[in-house]
Amino acid sequence: MSDNPRFDTHRESIVGRADVEDTPELIEYYAELERLKTGALWTVANKIEPWEPKSSSVPVLWKYTDLREHVLRSVNLVTPEKAGRRVIYLNNPGRQDVSAAVGWLYSGLQVMHPGEAASAHAHSSSALRFIMEGSGAYTIVDGHKMTLGANDFVITPNGTWHEHGVEAEGQTCIWQDGLDIPLVNALEAGFYAVHPDLAQKIIAPVDDSAGIWGAAGIRPSFVKWDKPYSPLFKYSWAETYEALQRYADKVAADPFDCHIMQYTNPATGGHVMSTIGASMQRLLPGFRGKAHQHTGSFVYQVAKGCGYSIIDGQRFDWQERDIFCVPSWAIHEHVNASATEDACLFSFNDLPTIEALGLYRLKPLLENDGYQQISQ
Amino acid sequence: MSDNPRFDTHRESIVGRADVEDTPELIEYYAELERLKTGALWTVANKIEPWEPKSSSVPVLWKYTDLREHVLRSVNLVTPEKAGRRVIYLNNPGRQDVSAAVGWLYSGLQVMHPGEAASAHAHSSSALRFIMEGSGAYTIVDGHKMTLGANDFVITPNGTWHEHGVEAEGQTCIWQDGLDIPLVNALEAGFYAVHPDLAQKIIAPVDDSAGIWGAAGIRPSFVKWDKPYSPLFKYSWAETYEALQRYADKVAADPFDCHIMQYTNPATGGHVMSTIGASMQRLLPGFRGKAHQHTGSFVYQVAKGCGYSIIDGQRFDWQERDIFCVPSWAIHEHVNASATEDACLFSFNDLPTIEALGLYRLKPLLENDGYQQISQ
Amino acid sequence: MSDNPRFDTHRESIVGRADVEDTPELIEYYAELERLKTGALWTVANKIEPWEPKSSSVPVLWKYTDLREHVLRSVNLVTPEKAGRRVIYLNNPGRQDVSAAVGWLYSGLQVMHPGEAASAHAHSSSALRFIMEGSGAYTIVDGHKMTLGANDFVITPNGTWHEHGVEAEGQTCIWQDGLDIPLVNALEAGFYAVHPDLAQKIIAPVDDSAGIWGAAGIRPSFVKWDKPYSPLFKYSWAETYEALQRYADKVAADPFDCHIMQYTNPATGGHVMSTIGASMQRLLPGFRGKAHQHTGSFVYQVAKGCGYSIIDGQRFDWQERDIFCVPSWAIHEHVNASATEDACLFSFNDLPTIEALGLYRLKPLLENDGYQQISQ
Amino acid sequence: MSDNPRFDTHRESIVGRADVEDTPELIEYYAELERLKTGALWTVANKIEPWEPKSSSVPVLWKYTDLREHVLRSVNLVTPEKAGRRVIYLNNPGRQDVSAAVGWLYSGLQVMHPGEAASAHAHSSSALRFIMEGSGAYTIVDGHKMTLGANDFVITPNGTWHEHGVEAEGQTCIWQDGLDIPLVNALEAGFYAVHPDLAQKIIAPVDDSAGIWGAAGIRPSFVKWDKPYSPLFKYSWAETYEALQRYADKVAADPFDCHIMQYTNPATGGHVMSTIGASMQRLLPGFRGKAHQHTGSFVYQVAKGCGYSIIDGQRFDWQERDIFCVPSWAIHEHVNASATEDACLFSFNDLPTIEALGLYRLKPLLENDGYQQISQ
Repeated sequence: MSDNPRFDTHRESIVGRADVEDTPELIEYYAELERLKTGALWTVANKIEPWEPKSSSVPVLWKYTDLREHVLRSVNLVTPEKAGRRVIYLNNPGRQDVSAAVGWLYSGLQVMHPGEAASAHAHSSSALRFIMEGSGAYTIVDGHKMTLGANDFVITPNGTWHEHGVEAEGQTCIWQDGLDIPLVNALEAGFYAVHPDLAQKIIAPVDDSAGIWGAAGIRPSFVKWDKPYSPLFKYSWAETYEALQRYADKVAADPFDCHIMQYTNPATGGHVMSTIGASMQRLLPGFRGKAHQHTGSFVYQVAKGCGYSIIDGQRFDWQERDIFCVPSWAIHEHVNASATEDACLFSFNDLPTIEALGLYRLKPLLENDGYQQISQ
Repeated sequence: MSDNPRFDTHRESIVGRADVEDTPELIEYYAELERLKTGALWTVANKIEPWEPKSSSVPVLWKYTDLREHVLRSVNLVTPEKAGRRVIYLNNPGRQDVSAAVGWLYSGLQVMHPGEAASAHAHSSSALRFIMEGSGAYTIVDGHKMTLGANDFVITPNGTWHEHGVEAEGQTCIWQDGLDIPLVNALEAGFYAVHPDLAQKIIAPVDDSAGIWGAAGIRPSFVKWDKPYSPLFKYSWAETYEALQRYADKVAADPFDCHIMQYTNPATGGHVMSTIGASMQRLLPGFRGKAHQHTGSFVYQVAKGCGYSIIDGQRFDWQERDIFCVPSWAIHEHVNASATEDACLFSFNDLPTIEALGLYRLKPLLENDGYQQISQ
Repeated sequence: MSDNPRFDTHRESIVGRADVEDTPELIEYYAELERLKTGALWTVANKIEPWEPKSSSVPVLWKYTDLREHVLRSVNLVTPEKAGRRVIYLNNPGRQDVSAAVGWLYSGLQVMHPGEAASAHAHSSSALRFIMEGSGAYTIVDGHKMTLGANDFVITPNGTWHEHGVEAEGQTCIWQDGLDIPLVNALEAGFYAVHPDLAQKIIAPVDDSAGIWGAAGIRPSFVKWDKPYSPLFKYSWAETYEALQRYADKVAADPFDCHIMQYTNPATGGHVMSTIGASMQRLLPGFRGKAHQHTGSFVYQVAKGCGYSIIDGQRFDWQERDIFCVPSWAIHEHVNASATEDACLFSFNDLPTIEALGLYRLKPLLENDGYQQISQ
Repeated sequence: MSDNPRFDTHRESIVGRADVEDTPELIEYYAELERLKTGALWTVANKIEPWEPKSSSVPVLWKYTDLREHVLRSVNLVTPEKAGRRVIYLNNPGRQDVSAAVGWLYSGLQVMHPGEAASAHAHSSSALRFIMEGSGAYTIVDGHKMTLGANDFVITPNGTWHEHGVEAEGQTCIWQDGLDIPLVNALEAGFYAVHPDLAQKIIAPVDDSAGIWGAAGIRPSFVKWDKPYSPLFKYSWAETYEALQRYADKVAADPFDCHIMQYTNPATGGHVMSTIGASMQRLLPGFRGKAHQHTGSFVYQVAKGCGYSIIDGQRFDWQERDIFCVPSWAIHEHVNASATEDACLFSFNDLPTIEALGLYRLKPLLENDGYQQISQ
């Protein structure tokens, strides 16, 4: 706070906008308002009613080659008992106050050795995992155990008991955890509980949800499901990749996202969880996407191939297992750098939140034939 | 109308029920009411407010070996041009007035030779086909062509342009048509239109709906669908049978239906159409189901194996391609006659209608450990 | 069945329609099919797939002056104990087989003397009452008692315990009962139960639903309601009439229905019950509606004023308390005969059923400036 | 940032929680992570995964007698042209960074003189007004003009063109504006537009929405509405107060909120807008509510009477037109201080958001018979 606070730093000389210059009388008036725990709207109106969104997050690319050694090193530095979970989280320079990777989304890289298991807990946050490397990983959700391999996607929604581990005969696993922790904290609605037994009982055959809910266009007649998240929980890479290929065989590439599919709740056709959605997209060899911008924050992980994305004029070159983010309303375009191999991008986002609240907007870039200029 | 009409044929001596004996004065009164296009409720109340449903349909088994030759013979008897479609429909003895197989459901066996094609039309009735034999069959719905093999299931919903045919290089095909024609007629809401060009233009790659909507737990992000029926249209036997096997691997057999799955609209998780639902169930080797009764009318077609069903105390032995019906509220149980082979039953029904109107009820048979006595 | 049955009575010489002439060979073939409980589709196709609906109901006007004395006379002819309920039902000449007033809708006039009460029962049919005359009537639904006066509307939905009566200090009451009995019977889903105590216990203050759900645009925050019918149950004439007047003050008359409002479930904004909807419309003085036709069956009761309706070219003059019906797809137009007084028409219908099944269609009359010619 | 940053300030020695002590090696490790735009989860885990919510907002009471003169004084200090709107906003000491009254809710007091009108604009934020004093106020939403008096409630939802004014023959008006500006900004989804003509054309009779949607249990049959907010827009105090009285006549007082009703969208029965809900509650004379806590942030305005609320152990005495807030998960209880007069509290909240995201939780206070101890 300076000696001479200014209140007229957001003036705009446009009809319908606030344009009030500080005067001694007004400054005194503002001081009185402050004592009453109030303020004059016209001093902040233009700030809090912007013409369009300007994200506080910045685009970031996290190279897996940079992160991997640090993630593995955590194993030597802290025990699971002391650390709870050995996770390196992604800390967007614009969101350090809320430990977010972008917007209100948290992301972290977790490592687990064969034979290790985390204790079971539940929380109001909704979570997902996307497996980066290793074998023998598993997740248990409300007593249902699921096995996980590279590029498999699994959800552990709001309110479920869940725990993770790696089988003794497996190999060291690293996965990305995605959560809405920042959002749930911001909404002041976060609860946390440790499982009374620290571990769940397995109550069904391993991977039973795949047998019950994992077929296309057909479901058990007498299995009810009314919870607000997907009963399938786990989405395997092999089936996802095949789905994208079959889709591409039938439908022309979208100019912005080539072929993009979103993971769904098979009981409703909607998003997998109430607050976080997830998608996988496939860029054909040589695909160069056009640019657009939309509301919603996105964390991408490269599942296959290599290429680059241009985000608000800045180029980010990515390869398999790299992670990058696209903030809300950032202009972005994706390019597959290979002329022969396809590239796949996994992403998770807050679209279920944005859509439920009626806040989704999309705008294609019209200038320069839809391609951004790269800023130097 | 007899000389002495009786009005007291529905009396019940139970409190809360009508129990009025005819008298000369009442009969004269009834006659006056009739002249005014009215009647006395107590003369019909017990009839129109039964304690529980008593279907006017009777259980019937139609043996494919009986029907096949007659279906094929129709080819020699009538031309497609004159007949419109060469179809032998199933005519339940209790429903001949409405040409229904059971309840308000129509079923017919249609035959088509290689190179033949029916003209395109649209109607308010919703329809489905289940392929019984042959190769090279196809259906075109609103410009999307789908290829069909044995035990494949396809829908042509209310209001869609549709046409069927068999490729010149195919083999004579026979399939079952299922429709809600009797229901739509009963509701006095049936419209029919012949396509102005008698044939549709193909507007997309063959079998494109399978590429767009045919993956489990994932869908295109930017494809909208808000029609009240499934955008998948076609459900292949291979995938259906695999789904049933995977389901059986994870979940114990239901005492009544073993493992039964219903075809769904992947955009909603609900029924494939607004008026007709469809299911496939798999009876494990040696499965002997218990009996129950519920509202809703069902047409079954044997997709695989052999066995029998007991319906209202009557045994019906079935094998592959046979068709039988279970009327509303009929007590029924299904048995797989083989100790080594599984059996699969396709069925379609009016459950979407029954459920939408809040009329579904189910009751297990409690006597005799849940098994019916077979009446002689 | 005549000696020479004809099978070619539905021929149409239009491409895409059946046009097969009987031959000796075909007649023999048809006989064989009949033995197998089947038939040839082309003999019935044009009948069961009509170009547009042709209702089996006929338009009927029931004059209250004709019916009233017969309704009252029933009191002397039968006791409530023997009759169950003393009701004269409306028996459409085209629907006598199902005791319907029109389509699948039942309607009856019930009379009850002061101090009388019917025994409590429940059934799968959904019911409504519209009070015609008298005072002191009441209905009890699931333990909630509601008082009823002239032109009040009340529902007793599928599955609810309900009973009716007239207070000892009231006056003889006559009301119209509307039910979906024919529909529920047709769907073979009708159950009936007499209350074990023959009467319910009152569990809440009289008319409590009006206090809980009877305000516009506001509802109790912590009262849950998830049943598929309106928790308001009763809709009073005074409020309904006022609503129509306020509506007419703000919105121009519809050319077909002047000002028409439908009773709603305040918890959803939808229809009051799953199978039956109800509306009240107000025709301004001198209003002469244009003609249209739509699917759905309607029973009208004149709540106020006098006028006439032209239904499929036939004129029906009505006054207060008269009842008339409009069959599905019948062309109809309504006229207020008074140049100074408004007229109000209550109606109930099967639109919830028709809409849920995707079968609603509407078509305005285009010829003759939208007015029918009256047939002689 | 101090010279020796600490990373172990959130340790908890509970199984399943993070409990890692800083060591020189770890501190060096943390520094490396920071360079990679990452961090170690265990340093923040206990902070970002709290056992239960702890709001950053504090309970505040804003006395109208304090605010009124300052609000009126703004008229002399700034012109509407320069200020846009003359509004004093409520600035919660814990939320000054986002100009919120509580949580993510904005509130401000706006003053307008007779004959003044604000220019029309639209934004992604949803807004409401609750009239505090004056006469002749009006709001225009998408061309529909509505007149407003004291304690009337009106919404101007996300995306609608809206403008406010006071008729020349009216009296100076003050009202509360409630908005979700902080939420929409936090979600980085805020757009703002000034109307090209600065004012809308009136396209319908004044207060037409009340005639169309303002009746209980009945709606126009042929008026469609599919927008995610209420078509009624305006809720008058007279009708609201009458509804609360009728409700109280039929239903016993809730131990926490006496009689509370929420404003609804009559087309759906749900909340009035996607992000903000609103309620009015009536405390009977002498009512002393018990305490509970729940997620969701609330701004209350006293519509009638006087009393006090205890919020997290602190007592706030309120009278008509005072405003106070209850932060998420704060324990609170309301008391009517009068033994003879009722008291009414208007409130608006973020429950639609909290519920859509599955984050609502409620917990009654069990200690001390449900009453809080007041902290000194």
